[in-house]
Amino acid sequence: MATITPALLLDQERLIRNVARMRDRAEALGVALRLHMKTAKSLDVADAVVAQGEGITVSTLVEAEAFAGAGYRDILYAVGFEPGKADRVEALLERGVDLQVIVDSPEVASWLATSDIGAGVWIEIDPDGTRCGVSPDDDRLITIGSALGSSLRGVMTHAGGSYACRHGSEIARAAEQERAAVVAAAERLRAAGAAVQGVSVGSTPTATFASDESGVTEMRPGVFMFQDLYQAGLGVCRLDDIAVSVETAVIGHRSNGELVVDAGALALSLDRSTARQELDWGYGAVTDTDGRLLDGLMVRAVTQEHGIVANRAGSIDLERYPIGSRLRVLPNHACMTAAAHAGYHLPDTFWPRITGW
Amino acid sequence: MATITPALLLDQERLIRNVARMRDRAEALGVALRLHMKTAKSLDVADAVVAQGEGITVSTLVEAEAFAGAGYRDILYAVGFEPGKADRVEALLERGVDLQVIVDSPEVASWLATSDIGAGVWIEIDPDGTRCGVSPDDDRLITIGSALGSSLRGVMTHAGGSYACRHGSEIARAAEQERAAVVAAAERLRAAGAAVQGVSVGSTPTATFASDESGVTEMRPGVFMFQDLYQAGLGVCRLDDIAVSVETAVIGHRSNGELVVDAGALALSLDRSTARQELDWGYGAVTDTDGRLLDGLMVRAVTQEHGIVANRAGSIDLERYPIGSRLRVLPNHACMTAAAHAGYHLPDTFWPRITGW
Repeated sequence: MATITPALLLDQERLIRNVARMRDRAEALGVALRLHMKTAKSLDVADAVVAQGEGITVSTLVEAEAFAGAGYRDILYAVGFEPGKADRVEALLERGVDLQVIVDSPEVASWLATSDIGAGVWIEIDPDGTRCGVSPDDDRLITIGSALGSSLRGVMTHAGGSYACRHGSEIARAAEQERAAVVAAAERLRAAGAAVQGVSVGSTPTATFASDESGVTEMRPGVFMFQDLYQAGLGVCRLDDIAVSVETAVIGHRSNGELVVDAGALALSLDRSTARQELDWGYGAVTDTDGRLLDGLMVRAVTQEHGIVANRAGSIDLERYPIGSRLRVLPNHACMTAAAHAGYHLPDTFWPRITGW
Repeated sequence: MATITPALLLDQERLIRNVARMRDRAEALGVALRLHMKTAKSLDVADAVVAQGEGITVSTLVEAEAFAGAGYRDILYAVGFEPGKADRVEALLERGVDLQVIVDSPEVASWLATSDIGAGVWIEIDPDGTRCGVSPDDDRLITIGSALGSSLRGVMTHAGGSYACRHGSEIARAAEQERAAVVAAAERLRAAGAAVQGVSVGSTPTATFASDESGVTEMRPGVFMFQDLYQAGLGVCRLDDIAVSVETAVIGHRSNGELVVDAGALALSLDRSTARQELDWGYGAVTDTDGRLLDGLMVRAVTQEHGIVANRAGSIDLERYPIGSRLRVLPNHACMTAAAHAGYHLPDTFWPRITGW
């Protein structure tokens, strides 16, 4: 039990189990894991889950810098590079880190080619039109490949569209779409004479439901390490796989049979992703301090430092939860909730998070 | 211009102007200011805006501890106290800080009365049924007042309902409702023999539109220091009063005429409060680096580290915004956006924020 509330708790056993399961999947599919550290942002978590020799993925340069300081050498910075970040990328390369960047435009590819930065570069492929990347059938793919020349490392993609799926069979189709797009891009580049080594796919949902990754060399899932209510709603995990929760204290009783707790919008985040799923968890599902779901209890509303806990099925027996009692909240979206906290409370230690940019 | 993106910028001139205007209002209304530091969470901001002899309001004990360390002595911790926080409250009192806590239940009032903590206590009054507090006509008010005895400092309230208003005249009514509730509570307690010194109201909207604060001794607005798009939508401020923005770099061009920027859900927050106003700003309004609004440009969508900037009126002329160019995003809700950042970038300095709990 964390003394100070609200506090982010991490269940190390679930973390290890989630990663072991994903590692088994990757082995069965014949691909490497390049774990995405954007959710955990923690050297301690990485120590616990990254295998010897594996590369990692990061979402910010401050993560890259922290992991470089801890000895990680093969790091993919998986958010589109722009020239304003050249100095920090260069500094990492000069420290001997194999920092790799991603591009999806001929302009940036040319800029990199004429700079003397020398980072390995992956081309970002758009599998579903949801965010970034060049389409496999876009002629700019070849232009980018030619501009990069020998700095080209591979092609990578992120199936953002998988988050809009409703169940496993839809996600499996999104996974095949993701695979097909990035493999097609690799083949087209190879046909044009480019040396494409890496073929990388992302996303926890597709990594969980893919049945075939032919042509793919690696997967970059991240949030699966912690899982969350949204992933549970997708069928990616069970509720008892969720490895992070926010411990909170009851600070008030409302006359309508609701509790007020000291975890609000800052401690839980404003993520409402489960609102578009069959089971809407408000701002989080409520458990006791042993992690057992309290039937029907969820965080109905939040303001900055207040959460309102309601019972889906009616009012709460307030006497069961005196002021000062402790509850835990399972997050809708682990990446967002974890980001509000300085680190993870484990029974005997505290694992700091890497924050900022 | 901040070198690293995304970065939170603070316009000190606007901050000072916003506070000067609120101070004029408070003087005209005949009430003191007890500025709420929950938005700024910064010793430097407090130094710039808190007048000699004024008390402050905080939303977390970590703020109280930081402000105590900087010499502030009159601090109201304005989130319901629960016994798990007694040690930290006691430690602050032992340092000579006049830390005051709030309660809205007989249970906690009795607990405080029988403890030897000795903090000054305010009773939280519910003006509108939106969150916490005891109603002025609830008999528990008298029970709480009796239990507190000489530790009672006053009554305080927060007109959370004012955030659901649509324009100034509605907010003025919410302000009168807030005033009436807390003054009625004070009078009822006094009639029962309690010594009620402080009568405190909160909320930026009501502080801005109140025309009469008879019976009130102080106001505790916070977000007005920075203002934001939501406050602008309420008519509380103009867009050019907004003192914080997030500087971001363009990292991609989408074929549908949208920009991808490196400020996403973490840097901007997921706050969508303007969605319920007439003018929905998505996840933020986009300006150039001189702070001039770029007509129709807003952040339409975010993922963890990506923002998608769209033009309300159609597609964006992408050539005007090459990859690497800088933009700024005005936040929907300054409290939430600021919370994602380690501090404020000013032209020649950096002001750190107090984070965590």
